[in-house]
Amino acid sequence: MPELRKDPVVGRWVIISTERGRRPSDFRIEPVRAVGGNCVFCPGNEAKTPPEILANRAPDSARNEPGWSLRVVPNKFPALRIEGELEPSGEGLYDRMNGVGAHEVVIESPDHQATLATLPADTVADVLLFYRDRVVDLKKDPRFEYILVFKNHGAAAGASLEHPHSQLIATPIIPIMLTEELNGSSQYYGMKERCVWCDILHQERHNQRRMIVEANGFVALAPFAPRFPFETWILPTHHRSAFEETGVEELRGLAEVLGEFLRRMDRVLQHPPFNFMLHTAPLREGPLEHFHWHLEIIPKLTNVAGYEWGSGFFINPVPPEDAAAALREDGD
Amino acid sequence: MPELRKDPVVGRWVIISTERGRRPSDFRIEPVRAVGGNCVFCPGNEAKTPPEILANRAPDSARNEPGWSLRVVPNKFPALRIEGELEPSGEGLYDRMNGVGAHEVVIESPDHQATLATLPADTVADVLLFYRDRVVDLKKDPRFEYILVFKNHGAAAGASLEHPHSQLIATPIIPIMLTEELNGSSQYYGMKERCVWCDILHQERHNQRRMIVEANGFVALAPFAPRFPFETWILPTHHRSAFEETGVEELRGLAEVLGEFLRRMDRVLQHPPFNFMLHTAPLREGPLEHFHWHLEIIPKLTNVAGYEWGSGFFINPVPPEDAAAALREDGD
Repeated sequence: MPELRKDPVVGRWVIISTERGRRPSDFRIEPVRAVGGNCVFCPGNEAKTPPEILANRAPDSARNEPGWSLRVVPNKFPALRIEGELEPSGEGLYDRMNGVGAHEVVIESPDHQATLATLPADTVADVLLFYRDRVVDLKKDPRFEYILVFKNHGAAAGASLEHPHSQLIATPIIPIMLTEELNGSSQYYGMKERCVWCDILHQERHNQRRMIVEANGFVALAPFAPRFPFETWILPTHHRSAFEETGVEELRGLAEVLGEFLRRMDRVLQHPPFNFMLHTAPLREGPLEHFHWHLEIIPKLTNVAGYEWGSGFFINPVPPEDAAAALREDGD
Repeated sequence: MPELRKDPVVGRWVIISTERGRRPSDFRIEPVRAVGGNCVFCPGNEAKTPPEILANRAPDSARNEPGWSLRVVPNKFPALRIEGELEPSGEGLYDRMNGVGAHEVVIESPDHQATLATLPADTVADVLLFYRDRVVDLKKDPRFEYILVFKNHGAAAGASLEHPHSQLIATPIIPIMLTEELNGSSQYYGMKERCVWCDILHQERHNQRRMIVEANGFVALAPFAPRFPFETWILPTHHRSAFEETGVEELRGLAEVLGEFLRRMDRVLQHPPFNFMLHTAPLREGPLEHFHWHLEIIPKLTNVAGYEWGSGFFINPVPPEDAAAALREDGD
């Protein structure tokens, strides 16, 4: 029997459609493997990106030259522009403002073939540290209310370049999906005086059915009401609302759990395209008792179609208990 | 300069990213053209679908045999099951219920190669009449709160069969996207005592920049804050909340506007994959002053990626004014 399940944070129902049940091998997955090389993000082509904002470099190397191990540059085709003021205005009943924001790219390695699953944990930790540094720096710009760090891996997941990279977009608006999580978790806190994600962690660690990895103060789990097959959340076990307040040692722990999860996913789903998105508290909030930062990871296995676009009601053919079991069993 | 625009109904902001501006010919569109034939929906294969619920048939033809021009059957791989009770229950802090619902398929023509763009307006009107009949019939089942009629056209838009068909799913839950439209429009009505879609129609018909087609009491327009390039809404010019209260003559008018729009879209975007979704009032509501039924059409031109999945903030590279102009100019 298919089941309707409700996300306890945002109240969104999903259809867990067991009658369309699928095993990992039933998805037609185009494995993501870098085939090119010498792309605009490769060493030697530094002049093909806008000038670098931040880099880890060999001591004798110069900015915008080879010799880097990690590099942040503005997106050459930014969705938003860094210059200018918002100038909000109306057009009859409509509201608009200038598309002011930052759009940056974190080039995760000089190696075109590397991925966060294959890079050493120290390097992944450096990538996470760069996310933190960029958030801390962009937070100083009073025009911005939110920064979303995300990754598109593989063309089917929206990546236009195969060289390993992630991105961030800073906006003058808090995105609606975060507003929904903030509202839902604030309501829950109002009733229970507890963080909903802390309660989720407590329940999941107790019954284990949706747990995937737990180590170093982080948990990777399959959420109860996932929109997508094999959707996974990684959360710190201790409550914290702002990602950028995570210490260096903790980021190292996160790097290990993230790498471990991605390697399991690569084995079970054969190197699928995927996205991840970092949900953290809005920039102008102090520490929040009701919000808990987390990373959402969604392999791209199915096509989103008319029903989902029209309803917001996602049909997911894989129960999260099955996804978690497959990912748990396929250990190192 | 890119622009941030807010949808006046649900309050969702989008990024109109003019710097990534694209013309119709810049999209890599896989034209949708039926190449197969003799599929499970073709005449002669009636036994390969579950028994028909409704059909237009030649007087001498028998049920589940050839001789039909239009046919409704249950989906053979339904997302939800028609039998059973909801039996809502908890699992710790989570909520679930049985996946009870109806999932039906409207086979729009015996001709494998036909589309709603090429079928005569009378046939398209019959399809719309079947949507109405199925909604009226399923509304009698007290377990259902909402019915969403939708179409997936082309594999990239999620269609698993190329034979022309649309679908409907009846659910015991009002989908979250409808709840958002109902809440937003109710708030607007509270402030203005007017329907927000009536106000949109008034403003758009006055300034014309986003109008595509107007005829027979229906308007096809590009919304001010579209999530997707070439997203289009078709609305009745007279206020009505429930699609199923539309008269036969009106449905004929809608069929002409829908066909005209789809032919324009096929010419400008070279037969793109697309989805449409019918937004109507929930089944258990009387006529609503604040809700206005409408059809949303989204050609599948871009990949939705991590930023959109993580934020709900869509990046749209085509201003709706440009999309509407292209579709207006390319008339019959």
